[in-house]
Amino acid sequence: MWGGRFRGGLDPEFAHFQASLPVDHVLAFADLETNRAWSRALAAAGVLTQHEMHRLHRAIDELIAHWQQHGVPRDDDAEDVHSLVERELVARCGDLGKRVHTGRSRNDQVATDLRLFLREYTVELMRLVGEVCAALVDLAAAHADAPMPGYTHLQRAQPITIGHHALAHAEALARDHGRLVDAWQRFEQCPLGSGALAGTTVPVDRATLAEDLAFLGGPTRNSLDATAARDHLCELAFACAMACTHLSRLAEDYVFFASHEARFLTFGDAVSTGSSLMPQKRNPDAMELVRGHAGAVQGALVALLTTVKGLPLAYNRDLQTDKQVLLPALAATASCLRTAALAVRHATFDRDRCAAEAARGYQDATDLADLLVQAGVPFRDAHGIVGAAVNRAVELGVELSDLPAAEQRRLLPQLTVDLRRALAVDAVLARRAAIGGTAPACVRAEIERWRSQLADWAELHDEPEPEPEAP
Amino acid sequence: MWGGRFRGGLDPEFAHFQASLPVDHVLAFADLETNRAWSRALAAAGVLTQHEMHRLHRAIDELIAHWQQHGVPRDDDAEDVHSLVERELVARCGDLGKRVHTGRSRNDQVATDLRLFLREYTVELMRLVGEVCAALVDLAAAHADAPMPGYTHLQRAQPITIGHHALAHAEALARDHGRLVDAWQRFEQCPLGSGALAGTTVPVDRATLAEDLAFLGGPTRNSLDATAARDHLCELAFACAMACTHLSRLAEDYVFFASHEARFLTFGDAVSTGSSLMPQKRNPDAMELVRGHAGAVQGALVALLTTVKGLPLAYNRDLQTDKQVLLPALAATASCLRTAALAVRHATFDRDRCAAEAARGYQDATDLADLLVQAGVPFRDAHGIVGAAVNRAVELGVELSDLPAAEQRRLLPQLTVDLRRALAVDAVLARRAAIGGTAPACVRAEIERWRSQLADWAELHDEPEPEPEAP
Amino acid sequence: MWGGRFRGGLDPEFAHFQASLPVDHVLAFADLETNRAWSRALAAAGVLTQHEMHRLHRAIDELIAHWQQHGVPRDDDAEDVHSLVERELVARCGDLGKRVHTGRSRNDQVATDLRLFLREYTVELMRLVGEVCAALVDLAAAHADAPMPGYTHLQRAQPITIGHHALAHAEALARDHGRLVDAWQRFEQCPLGSGALAGTTVPVDRATLAEDLAFLGGPTRNSLDATAARDHLCELAFACAMACTHLSRLAEDYVFFASHEARFLTFGDAVSTGSSLMPQKRNPDAMELVRGHAGAVQGALVALLTTVKGLPLAYNRDLQTDKQVLLPALAATASCLRTAALAVRHATFDRDRCAAEAARGYQDATDLADLLVQAGVPFRDAHGIVGAAVNRAVELGVELSDLPAAEQRRLLPQLTVDLRRALAVDAVLARRAAIGGTAPACVRAEIERWRSQLADWAELHDEPEPEPEAP
Amino acid sequence: MWGGRFRGGLDPEFAHFQASLPVDHVLAFADLETNRAWSRALAAAGVLTQHEMHRLHRAIDELIAHWQQHGVPRDDDAEDVHSLVERELVARCGDLGKRVHTGRSRNDQVATDLRLFLREYTVELMRLVGEVCAALVDLAAAHADAPMPGYTHLQRAQPITIGHHALAHAEALARDHGRLVDAWQRFEQCPLGSGALAGTTVPVDRATLAEDLAFLGGPTRNSLDATAARDHLCELAFACAMACTHLSRLAEDYVFFASHEARFLTFGDAVSTGSSLMPQKRNPDAMELVRGHAGAVQGALVALLTTVKGLPLAYNRDLQTDKQVLLPALAATASCLRTAALAVRHATFDRDRCAAEAARGYQDATDLADLLVQAGVPFRDAHGIVGAAVNRAVELGVELSDLPAAEQRRLLPQLTVDLRRALAVDAVLARRAAIGGTAPACVRAEIERWRSQLADWAELHDEPEPEPEAP
Repeated sequence: MWGGRFRGGLDPEFAHFQASLPVDHVLAFADLETNRAWSRALAAAGVLTQHEMHRLHRAIDELIAHWQQHGVPRDDDAEDVHSLVERELVARCGDLGKRVHTGRSRNDQVATDLRLFLREYTVELMRLVGEVCAALVDLAAAHADAPMPGYTHLQRAQPITIGHHALAHAEALARDHGRLVDAWQRFEQCPLGSGALAGTTVPVDRATLAEDLAFLGGPTRNSLDATAARDHLCELAFACAMACTHLSRLAEDYVFFASHEARFLTFGDAVSTGSSLMPQKRNPDAMELVRGHAGAVQGALVALLTTVKGLPLAYNRDLQTDKQVLLPALAATASCLRTAALAVRHATFDRDRCAAEAARGYQDATDLADLLVQAGVPFRDAHGIVGAAVNRAVELGVELSDLPAAEQRRLLPQLTVDLRRALAVDAVLARRAAIGGTAPACVRAEIERWRSQLADWAELHDEPEPEPEAP
Repeated sequence: MWGGRFRGGLDPEFAHFQASLPVDHVLAFADLETNRAWSRALAAAGVLTQHEMHRLHRAIDELIAHWQQHGVPRDDDAEDVHSLVERELVARCGDLGKRVHTGRSRNDQVATDLRLFLREYTVELMRLVGEVCAALVDLAAAHADAPMPGYTHLQRAQPITIGHHALAHAEALARDHGRLVDAWQRFEQCPLGSGALAGTTVPVDRATLAEDLAFLGGPTRNSLDATAARDHLCELAFACAMACTHLSRLAEDYVFFASHEARFLTFGDAVSTGSSLMPQKRNPDAMELVRGHAGAVQGALVALLTTVKGLPLAYNRDLQTDKQVLLPALAATASCLRTAALAVRHATFDRDRCAAEAARGYQDATDLADLLVQAGVPFRDAHGIVGAAVNRAVELGVELSDLPAAEQRRLLPQLTVDLRRALAVDAVLARRAAIGGTAPACVRAEIERWRSQLADWAELHDEPEPEPEAP
Repeated sequence: MWGGRFRGGLDPEFAHFQASLPVDHVLAFADLETNRAWSRALAAAGVLTQHEMHRLHRAIDELIAHWQQHGVPRDDDAEDVHSLVERELVARCGDLGKRVHTGRSRNDQVATDLRLFLREYTVELMRLVGEVCAALVDLAAAHADAPMPGYTHLQRAQPITIGHHALAHAEALARDHGRLVDAWQRFEQCPLGSGALAGTTVPVDRATLAEDLAFLGGPTRNSLDATAARDHLCELAFACAMACTHLSRLAEDYVFFASHEARFLTFGDAVSTGSSLMPQKRNPDAMELVRGHAGAVQGALVALLTTVKGLPLAYNRDLQTDKQVLLPALAATASCLRTAALAVRHATFDRDRCAAEAARGYQDATDLADLLVQAGVPFRDAHGIVGAAVNRAVELGVELSDLPAAEQRRLLPQLTVDLRRALAVDAVLARRAAIGGTAPACVRAEIERWRSQLADWAELHDEPEPEPEAP
Repeated sequence: MWGGRFRGGLDPEFAHFQASLPVDHVLAFADLETNRAWSRALAAAGVLTQHEMHRLHRAIDELIAHWQQHGVPRDDDAEDVHSLVERELVARCGDLGKRVHTGRSRNDQVATDLRLFLREYTVELMRLVGEVCAALVDLAAAHADAPMPGYTHLQRAQPITIGHHALAHAEALARDHGRLVDAWQRFEQCPLGSGALAGTTVPVDRATLAEDLAFLGGPTRNSLDATAARDHLCELAFACAMACTHLSRLAEDYVFFASHEARFLTFGDAVSTGSSLMPQKRNPDAMELVRGHAGAVQGALVALLTTVKGLPLAYNRDLQTDKQVLLPALAATASCLRTAALAVRHATFDRDRCAAEAARGYQDATDLADLLVQAGVPFRDAHGIVGAAVNRAVELGVELSDLPAAEQRRLLPQLTVDLRRALAVDAVLARRAAIGGTAPACVRAEIERWRSQLADWAELHDEPEPEPEAP
């Protein structure tokens, strides 16, 4: 394939090391589409006849059918997926199979194939993010007004609702969805027709070619950049790493909630495993595995950035490792999203325990200070007064609203309200009623907003080609 | 400030370690704006009188004027910038200075301050990306049709123009610009009014508050998420890391071009340094430093992702390190962008040498093969024939177009064209005329497109608040 | 300083960007020692007279005294610390101050300075690791036989002792200590005399020079490598990142132990902070900050590896960023170690609660299965029987040893032992008596071993120059 | 396998996601050795009879033979390699196959298996580092006195020898070898007998057990640490990342040396590939792929550190991803080492061109300044004089030693020596004769030292169990 300058063959071990088919065989169907579009462009440019083009298209259709049935070979002696496809086209239409390579190089071809492949994968990831969000929104809807403790620094802080907590994680994932959309739109430019580095010598109409392959952003604008750039892979890896980081935070919360100490939720058998030694164990493995894989996806991002950083223009062979690094990271992200959605759906909250614990640990201290403020005490003073009251309550082993009347009179002489009522969890929750607050009314309003957003997303995911943004 | 639960003081060494003022003093002016807007919201909610609000605003104005003149203190004994501001407001308007903290916590306050600060910084980074692109476009305009060697694998591949090479780097930076815009728009939601984690108890109108602080995306929609999220910092760090990675690739090219071996360009004295030992040295330090800092920015991205990954909701003190990591990375990115723009403007290409070298190293071999194809030879065969011709030319120490006539007849009997003319660099360049190709006409068209894009950017950078996208 | 090839000056902004004094001023005293040793070597080689050498040494002593009193300037117009030192020597002994640069370059000089500086810092880090271990061992000694719950997957698994838990973290840190020792010994070779890249032209005796600067491993063996290598910085950064990762795991445990849910320990006021809003809060900030900084140290490791990866031999200016990245990481590591030691010493375990909880959550299930095995039931069957018994106990809301007699007879007919006694926490602990087990006897034996190890370390830390290992 | 607490089965997709056999099947033979040793320990402790132990050992032998012939299954429905082995032992000796699990958990088992596996792999990596060094030393021996240009900042600096350059890279790899040895020795402690987290209840003699499995450092000293720790994986990943980083620097040099611009070396056909489009291409793919994979190995290090950082003690399921991340990184490192050794052996230096270029580009400027110093000119003045002479030589297009006599008299009146002789490359090289310098005599001395070191290594690699160091 490389022509007459070489006499000796590759060292066999090196030949094995440098072969990319074990990885890039996943691009086979994308490569066939690239061939189909390129042959159409060559025909339009007069390099192929219409008849030749049709012969090629038939061969492509046959190959698609064949590989759909038998799978794409991975352990073939073809060096890469492009060589494999070329060989199979030649087997089906002779020299014509070679001529489709006219004016094209593997550099623009792999760049195009990869974008076609990533386009579909990215939409699938978007859909999976939507599934986790849907699971969280359903959970929120079921528990929009169910109280549970809220934390900062893993210390009980103020009561929240289970629904509010679920929506917090959904909100973060919504931004990940946005990042996937942005990443996708940015690589929606067609590199085909960039040649090896300097552009093609065939007078193809690259705008039509880009349309033919349904690239929303038209053709790429610089052939060196088109064949050398891998920032879209880095950006996609970042979007995945960020989403997995958010899933990892969700897992941190749920692993804690499932502990014996918190006992706020129980994971169903579908997502739990036990111990081969300790019969009592029920481990939150699903969420732990999500957390573990998040590390690997972050590592993949580093690998890509590091490799790209050292390279001159245009294509360098270092870039072959891009797929080896990115594809497992995409697969891990997809698995983590699926597993997280499953774990959320199989998490059963113990509403009674959550409600009871929402009333423990002095989470109403801020509201007590606010009551003092309403009674005319400056906030900083109120803060000190309540701090002292908490200390006393800790000594007595009671909550603030259970302070004996005498203690209350001594510690909080400014207050005459019924503390039990004023500090009831429902009252505390209801006070936080500004947009985004934990008051059940706010949570329900957000659920409505989310339902509509999820419906919009569903349309986007079904329809993989939205209108492009203005540049 | 923490009230009555604590008796002993902090360990002095730990007190020093945990103080954030040495870092977060940069948020001082943003914090004052947050205070101004919050006091307006409190007045609207009836917590402050209009008169009190005006007193606070006057104090804020005084403080701005004072710090603009004398600088914000860094080595103060205030624990953080919020405490510092509160203390100064109290010094100016007594207890009223404390009351502005009503219904607010440092968690939503720092989240808001940071977004205000990052908003401006991000626009500045966008502007600087524009400056590098402008330098590259100017360079391209000066050398739109000047040939130079083009590389893949750091091996001479096909001739390109100096302008085409410059635009390749600009194209990559344009995507970085897009990423900065996306990152910025995503964090344009106002967290103020989220309280410590569960929302504020004061009935403020958060939509108006967001407008007051000119947040394009309105208020954040979940208080837990608003105080716990740091993905916008990660995204910004990623956009910086990617841009620096692209600058590093530019540096890779230019350091090579400036080597004795290539001698394609010379850096001016403004961006070069010598050696204290070796009198002949003229080192491309500007570009090397850019490359070096790119590594540090990638490290900052890793630091942020790693820290965030392990955290439960909502705020945890680990997050204090976010600014310590991000701010130097932003500064490094800004410096790298400025330095790269400077280096591009002080890079003088040796057009004669570039042109001469564009004709050396068999970069016309592809075109020779194409000529054979036009003469009816299948491409794979043509590839082999040219490979053999190159081998012979190497033996003879000549270029392909200088092969003795007898050799040409023997090796390339299919061709009767005048190779010198057919393989002239200008002819080779002109053949690559599809969109994005290196043909001077294409390069000039792209320069036009770039001029218009740079003008659009300039408007965006001047006008820091574009219309928000539909969500 | 760079001589006659340059006419124009540096661009002022670039001059600022490229100056390294703001960072490398910390090398000032190391640089003076390097100058002292080099002037001695030059004298031995006949380049300086003894008298000249003494004049230089006196100037060096003066400068040390001056800077010890007034501090090393950071905002000087000297480009780097070497220029600063040279200028000051010239100010004190005229041209002689310039002649000490004979046969030397800044490349071998900074390599030497940095190793001298890192040598001391590394010993200090070793000492601080020792302090954390000592705090953990003291804690273990105070609670060698105090039971607490043991976890896998954050689920209660089997009871352990508080002492056993403390020693687990000490054990991990002991390996970090070993890594610091290894890193240190590996960079104990003297680069001075390597010139800019190719060696020095002055016939100095580099073995004597290495001894003079107390490098245990003699001179470096290749001048290109000596001036280009930065793997010792990477290795040190890795040792720091690993140690901080271990501290982060300690923090994960202690933050959980300090939660309202676990309530196993309370942090003293010296290492806790409260909330400006929520009066009841007592946050484990010390441990959270340790966790946060661990992320930054990992980022620094990435930054160093990434920057070094792309470089050809020998010195490149990218390497100037090494100190900017490494020094804050070393400082963060030192702070984290100090803070962790402090936090361990200010952590008060609630022994009663820990003991009570060690008996809850079915942590004796494995031992119950073992009892069945002793009664002749195959382990896998026993595992199933106990699993069913746990399910029934959960329904009844009791521990296994509190199962009603009738239930016990029905579920565990094979057993006649007194479950309360057989499953008492002390009995469960005592059974795990093989080396490294949690039985109090094992824990006490390990404490003895640790006391002796800490004594050995103390000698090593006091005596910064151990005998080198055979290569 | 998890007993009676679970009723429903795992979700099928999650079951697939959580299965580890596709990765941990590589531990099969190590797991069998662990089983052999553990059954011996159980027999010594009276839990098994000698006869039972022998039956187990026979079954293990059979299984080894079977899997050596047929391979270890990867797509089995066993959840992990331990379950697979248990099932196969049960198939061969019934319930006895289950009893070998007595007093053991998968947590201490996988920790032990992994160390056994890594021990062998680490020695193999050490051997491969030795192979690259041997190739470099052979290259150095062939060109100990052959001049070539030496670089800093990719600018010609001073001439060196090809041998000196080769040894610089070998020296860096020697430190990587040392790091592999250190990493290996640190994980040479046997975790078996640590149970799930708290130690084993069976009175096994762990010291004998460690000896039986040939662990040089005896048993681990804390069961929690032994089952939770993964720093040895991180350390090994770091040693690999550092070695690959060094190979990447070697690749940076060689890719540049192989460029048309430098033309210092040519890679043989065994390690080069061409282009399917450009017939003239001969690309240094071997070295580029090494560089590319180095990024992936750095990413793996990040993945491991990140995942470990967030974990409490002891085992968490996140750790299952450790092998998935580490094993490909070890394989990539091995491939990079093999490929680098091959590329070095197939790199042919063009000695004539290297020698000619060593005399070009003013690399003798330092020596000219030294001559002026010897003539009594202070170095800083000499530096300026030579700088001016270089500027003039550049204008004239000549080297310093070719300056016309009149120019020499004008620019360098202090000198009467014959510049051609004084500045001859051989003279320049010979002047750098201190240890580690590029003078051929030094290079030859280092080659001798290397031969002896390689012989020592060969013994170490053949003999995988050196005497342990004193702790």
